[in-house]
Amino acid sequence: MSEIKDITNRDVDFAKWYTDVVTKAGLVDYSTIKGSMIICPYGYAIWESMQKVLDAMFKETGHENVQMPMFIPESLLNVEKEHVEGFAPEVAWVTHGGTEKLDERLCVRPTSEVLFCDYYKKIIKSYRDLPKLYNQWCTIVRWEKTTRPFLRSREILWQEGHTMHATKEDALNETLRMLHVYEDFQRNYLAIPVIIGKKTEKEKFAGAEASYSLEAMMYDGVALQNGTSHYFGQGFAKTFGIEFLNKDNKLETPYQTSWGVTTRMIGALIMVHGDDRGLVIPPKIAPTKVIIIPIGDDELVLKETADLKSKLKLEGITYKVDDRPKTPGFKFAEAEVKGYPIRIEIGSRDLKENMLTIVRRDTLEKIRVAKEEVVKKLPEIFESIQQDMYNKALKRRDSMIYEASNYEEFTQIATTKPGFIKANWCGNEACENKIKEDFNMKSRCLIEDEEITTNCVCCNKPAKYRLYFGKQY
Amino acid sequence: MSEIKDITNRDVDFAKWYTDVVTKAGLVDYSTIKGSMIICPYGYAIWESMQKVLDAMFKETGHENVQMPMFIPESLLNVEKEHVEGFAPEVAWVTHGGTEKLDERLCVRPTSEVLFCDYYKKIIKSYRDLPKLYNQWCTIVRWEKTTRPFLRSREILWQEGHTMHATKEDALNETLRMLHVYEDFQRNYLAIPVIIGKKTEKEKFAGAEASYSLEAMMYDGVALQNGTSHYFGQGFAKTFGIEFLNKDNKLETPYQTSWGVTTRMIGALIMVHGDDRGLVIPPKIAPTKVIIIPIGDDELVLKETADLKSKLKLEGITYKVDDRPKTPGFKFAEAEVKGYPIRIEIGSRDLKENMLTIVRRDTLEKIRVAKEEVVKKLPEIFESIQQDMYNKALKRRDSMIYEASNYEEFTQIATTKPGFIKANWCGNEACENKIKEDFNMKSRCLIEDEEITTNCVCCNKPAKYRLYFGKQY
Repeated sequence: MSEIKDITNRDVDFAKWYTDVVTKAGLVDYSTIKGSMIICPYGYAIWESMQKVLDAMFKETGHENVQMPMFIPESLLNVEKEHVEGFAPEVAWVTHGGTEKLDERLCVRPTSEVLFCDYYKKIIKSYRDLPKLYNQWCTIVRWEKTTRPFLRSREILWQEGHTMHATKEDALNETLRMLHVYEDFQRNYLAIPVIIGKKTEKEKFAGAEASYSLEAMMYDGVALQNGTSHYFGQGFAKTFGIEFLNKDNKLETPYQTSWGVTTRMIGALIMVHGDDRGLVIPPKIAPTKVIIIPIGDDELVLKETADLKSKLKLEGITYKVDDRPKTPGFKFAEAEVKGYPIRIEIGSRDLKENMLTIVRRDTLEKIRVAKEEVVKKLPEIFESIQQDMYNKALKRRDSMIYEASNYEEFTQIATTKPGFIKANWCGNEACENKIKEDFNMKSRCLIEDEEITTNCVCCNKPAKYRLYFGKQY
Repeated sequence: MSEIKDITNRDVDFAKWYTDVVTKAGLVDYSTIKGSMIICPYGYAIWESMQKVLDAMFKETGHENVQMPMFIPESLLNVEKEHVEGFAPEVAWVTHGGTEKLDERLCVRPTSEVLFCDYYKKIIKSYRDLPKLYNQWCTIVRWEKTTRPFLRSREILWQEGHTMHATKEDALNETLRMLHVYEDFQRNYLAIPVIIGKKTEKEKFAGAEASYSLEAMMYDGVALQNGTSHYFGQGFAKTFGIEFLNKDNKLETPYQTSWGVTTRMIGALIMVHGDDRGLVIPPKIAPTKVIIIPIGDDELVLKETADLKSKLKLEGITYKVDDRPKTPGFKFAEAEVKGYPIRIEIGSRDLKENMLTIVRRDTLEKIRVAKEEVVKKLPEIFESIQQDMYNKALKRRDSMIYEASNYEEFTQIATTKPGFIKANWCGNEACENKIKEDFNMKSRCLIEDEEITTNCVCCNKPAKYRLYFGKQY
């Protein structure tokens, strides 16, 4: 990286701010290949950090990792009608292997429901084979026309869980269980508050009976769908002819789920927590928790730097030392762009008083601490950063959620205030479409735990549901 | 898995034995998609275990993970002539995105040298930017006609390191350093002895100046190339126009390396250590180190099973419990197919004497141990299994390496004895080709630390090199 340049003010141009942050923090870089991006070391390290926690959560809940083929023959994609209609327009087609034209073209997987079903048909024979709780980490491809780093790209790094169950109840439980695993992860590790709920018929996944999503609100009030969990019922299983013998030796069709999160979560991390100085990474997910910046090179400073490194190593706290021949100001700015949760400045003036300066990235608060106390104090500072970041995000989000009881109110809010709008809805897709057309706002998800007090916000007929509406990435 | 069926005797039909083991141990399964395989949970767990150790080794040696695009435009693949000639015949071509024909077709990466060079051209400007030590874990595609699980497949899970250096010396050191990292891993974790050395001109990687490989010998005497490390000199860098300003502010071209290992290592693990009962996994790489088999369900047995589980958990020793309603004999057989390093049998007769029975998978030796001593004793047993497995493999391999000083001797050995043949060679490709044609044996790698005492084994002209020859997977 050369010099750290100014980052666009996020209140002036949020889109430009985002692009500045992802590139200047060294998360991604643009490739010469149209539509493709490069995930740079720091961006990939954040993904690895997310993978590590999530993978442990998946294993803890009994899931096993597998690796399915990357290519789907056209005839296999065509097996499930709704599914193929949803995905065929956006897949990459392989037509030649070496110099030979293939008998049947293959698409690069845009998602793997049909691949898992094709395999489950082979291995599920008896109730003893259920549940099957498989997950895979892989890259999928969707041929997007316009792309934005982490938010919309042709190649997506993700995980996809695909499970099969003996009963409807088991499959529904699994769908919600994994939704809650994601919620737990996003709340407690990413410090991102999420709204979870069921998608409307219009917005559900191609081929699913019910889709649930995690909806996070970005700094600009726009929604980012930050993960989904789907219940398929017996739809795919019937289409694929998957059957098992139950305990009474009778044939039954199993019930299916799938669920996934992607590197999109990195986009959410940036747009929920970032500020005009750059990234702010919550300690529990930061690949590097502490950046040590020695100021000057007198002997005391070098000795303390070495001491601190070995103490941090001993405690298993990840750190980096910036001892390049640059000014402290330059290093502080870069540390802020990268969003390391804590910066420790080691200066000779402080050292004469036996002190070090800790700087919190989230608040920029400076804390002078006796040098012997620094490592002991870190865990509580991390904890406090983690909690404060979540609370700040929650407060901001909640301040941008509005209620509209009629179309006039809806219009007034939608045209003047960024954020989500809660409203009642008749259940008719025409009303969803009208709101989409008028305000570019889609339904986010159903609100199931609140009373419906007014008529449909759009057509004024009796309401059946409550919904969040919001613009989306 | 249904019943464990007999595994073909490995001395009767080694190929069939291999297929039996990979499928019956639950490592892979066949997909309905031609040329593709499914890596099942146990196979994938072994790969994860390998990844974890190797990834730590790469990071320890200063490498950073990134993720490059998956697609290479045809014009980019064509930039380096030798490289495209080597790979074009075996790539998968994407010609359509959704319903639109692409302006330029893209291949799915068969390896990523050109992608890294394309990116390095953008980010390497100064000597301060060097070295660049990047690695990526990903799937590559090579359009193989015939496939075998882990050994030859269309989709290959691997890692590929791609580095750039300021000097020739640095790049050569990196090439050899990573070769030794692989050797260390294979010797100390996989318990596989490997011969490392330089490939001949004929056998080197398309576009490289020098290729080094790790050559392991399988049970049947056939070689498996189990990893490679390449030195590219300035070839690609010049072709791509990558230049940096050196300390004297003059433009120079950097020096490049690449190195990779794949899921092929699982194939080697099977074919080096497996026996007629199935897999044998060395403890240091086994995803599950201990299988606990309670015999019967009397109270003492159940209590001891629970105790042992918590002790193993506390010690961080991975384990599984097989408490299915099956006979002990069935469970022992399955545990042997899966190759868990140690089986612990918990039976009421043993328990009456306060004992448990430990069975080593590698030797099938039964060790009766006082139950309080079991967990304490495990580390030394693991260590001893690990060491014994390596020594056994080494002894067998060394017993199958022969020396031939003329073509008659070579013919006699090549036609009667499986294994490797050491021989002297004039350096002429015609001799390599003749041996390949006559015996289907390729040169494996150069032997650099032994004296050349006779003429070329093939043409009898003065020899310049010593080589290993061997059949290969």
